[in-house]
Amino acid sequence: MAEVTREAARAVACLRRARRILITSHSSPDGDSLGSALAVWELASALGIAAHIVQRDPYPASLSFLPGLESVELASSLSSEVVEGVDFAVVLECPGINRPGLAGLERLPILNIDHHLENERYGVLNYLDEEAPAVGEMVLRMAEAAEVPVSATMATCLYTALVTDTGDFRFSNATPRAFEAARRLVAAGAVPHQIADALWNQTPSRVVRLTAEVLGSLELHAAGRLAVVTCDLGMLARAGARFEDTENLINIPRAMAGVEVAVLFKAFTPEATRVSLRSRGTVDVQRVAARFGGGGHRSAAGCTIARPFRQARQALLDTLAPLLEKP
Amino acid sequence: MAEVTREAARAVACLRRARRILITSHSSPDGDSLGSALAVWELASALGIAAHIVQRDPYPASLSFLPGLESVELASSLSSEVVEGVDFAVVLECPGINRPGLAGLERLPILNIDHHLENERYGVLNYLDEEAPAVGEMVLRMAEAAEVPVSATMATCLYTALVTDTGDFRFSNATPRAFEAARRLVAAGAVPHQIADALWNQTPSRVVRLTAEVLGSLELHAAGRLAVVTCDLGMLARAGARFEDTENLINIPRAMAGVEVAVLFKAFTPEATRVSLRSRGTVDVQRVAARFGGGGHRSAAGCTIARPFRQARQALLDTLAPLLEKP
Repeated sequence: MAEVTREAARAVACLRRARRILITSHSSPDGDSLGSALAVWELASALGIAAHIVQRDPYPASLSFLPGLESVELASSLSSEVVEGVDFAVVLECPGINRPGLAGLERLPILNIDHHLENERYGVLNYLDEEAPAVGEMVLRMAEAAEVPVSATMATCLYTALVTDTGDFRFSNATPRAFEAARRLVAAGAVPHQIADALWNQTPSRVVRLTAEVLGSLELHAAGRLAVVTCDLGMLARAGARFEDTENLINIPRAMAGVEVAVLFKAFTPEATRVSLRSRGTVDVQRVAARFGGGGHRSAAGCTIARPFRQARQALLDTLAPLLEKP
Repeated sequence: MAEVTREAARAVACLRRARRILITSHSSPDGDSLGSALAVWELASALGIAAHIVQRDPYPASLSFLPGLESVELASSLSSEVVEGVDFAVVLECPGINRPGLAGLERLPILNIDHHLENERYGVLNYLDEEAPAVGEMVLRMAEAAEVPVSATMATCLYTALVTDTGDFRFSNATPRAFEAARRLVAAGAVPHQIADALWNQTPSRVVRLTAEVLGSLELHAAGRLAVVTCDLGMLARAGARFEDTENLINIPRAMAGVEVAVLFKAFTPEATRVSLRSRGTVDVQRVAARFGGGGHRSAAGCTIARPFRQARQALLDTLAPLLEKP
């Protein structure tokens, strides 16, 4: 822990040398990247450093409650005006320098703050901690190292970072460090039940209607170890839903008793079928996706099969079947 | 906090005076009551005290992973054999002495351990703490006061108690104390992601099918502030589902953007319609339920209307409509 504290103090010392900084995080920002960016903005302000946040993509609606969002500018490249007088950029939760999607960012010196294993160490200072449950927890350590009191707004941003990256403390990064950070942030004014309500209780009605449509397609194979659901254009139309509304639907069949692999087929065009795969057991779905030119992780992967739905479905199920036979 | 620690130490001193105890908690046990009972059993054993757990009702399938369940006996009354040589009973998470549903329990001296506001103080010793996020947190304090090391099995039981009673830290009892207890329990060997998987990722396929059926009935009223879903016998039959499978379905319309009140109608008989109500806003649904002879809380209530579905639905919606008019 002493080492962790030292690293945070080094990042703060770097920050203190600046008069003006730019803050960014990865494209398609999530709770950890955006919450951390807003907290670094507040920390910089408390240290008397001018700061502005630039992001390529707008934030998802579920994060619209975060305090300080009005200070986020949207841009896909850094104009010379924007970088004028900037000492360096703080880049949050980005394994590589291209992840923010900001053209021109590479011309600035970088304070690189991340918890990914595969970080490319592209900064003039790299504050990296693979053991951190969220980048937000690293930023909390910076505030503490800087002896800047954690305000209720900063606590709200950092608690959101923590709770989204740990899946409400249900992922394997729900470590004693995660709970220690949560304790401090709640003591500093984060309100877990309000944040949870803002984050999770905002399902659009079209998503509920689409859930009904897609769950209605549930099929079980391999003696209940494989759950398959399908989404097609008719379902989207009846629900009044959009392509991106399918995002979390696979989690419902994934959470079924006895299910080891869950598959969602998205049949949106006659030529190609998108496939999302989830595994809770021994099956490595990344290897299944790779056979069709896709990728991902052992437990979550995806691919696009250049065939119409029925053929694509058969090809994928044929590939999965031998992997789900009982040993 | 000193007072809290003193109370836990007093409960431990009481425990130490016993040679044989009986442990019980409320009927229809949940994660907090059952997890706490199993942890007290382990604590008593560590102190050299013979202990057995008696519960009226079987545990829900989602708790079948808890270590030590083989020591739970099911009974609805205490035979003289069972109470033979028992010094006292430890009663967990019960506001009143009738909550365990064990006939004969009132004949034993009671160590009453609870965190409910309305506890009736029926014990020879009452260890009560309304600020405790879960009774499991109080039992953790007892183990610490007794200087009994928290084993991985005890930590698993107590973490389950904590996480179920705080709704994965999403309820208003997710306090700094809750996170401090979580930190200690995870450090002692509780594995949050395994416990979460065991608790939440065991949905039977019939519940997924019933979810599809019930969400398909979604109606919005009052400019989207009222969400209504219905479950009837046809839906149950098509899903192969049971009455009790409807239990959590109302949480989906409750979590919709803009929804202030969610209603689930259960039309299972021609004579009567069961109604579940949830409120996220200013509407007090307990008052609505009370008009039909039901009860509950401000944010969660229920009633049975002695009319067929269509009439019951109309009567309830007529009662709700004026409460949902914009001020």
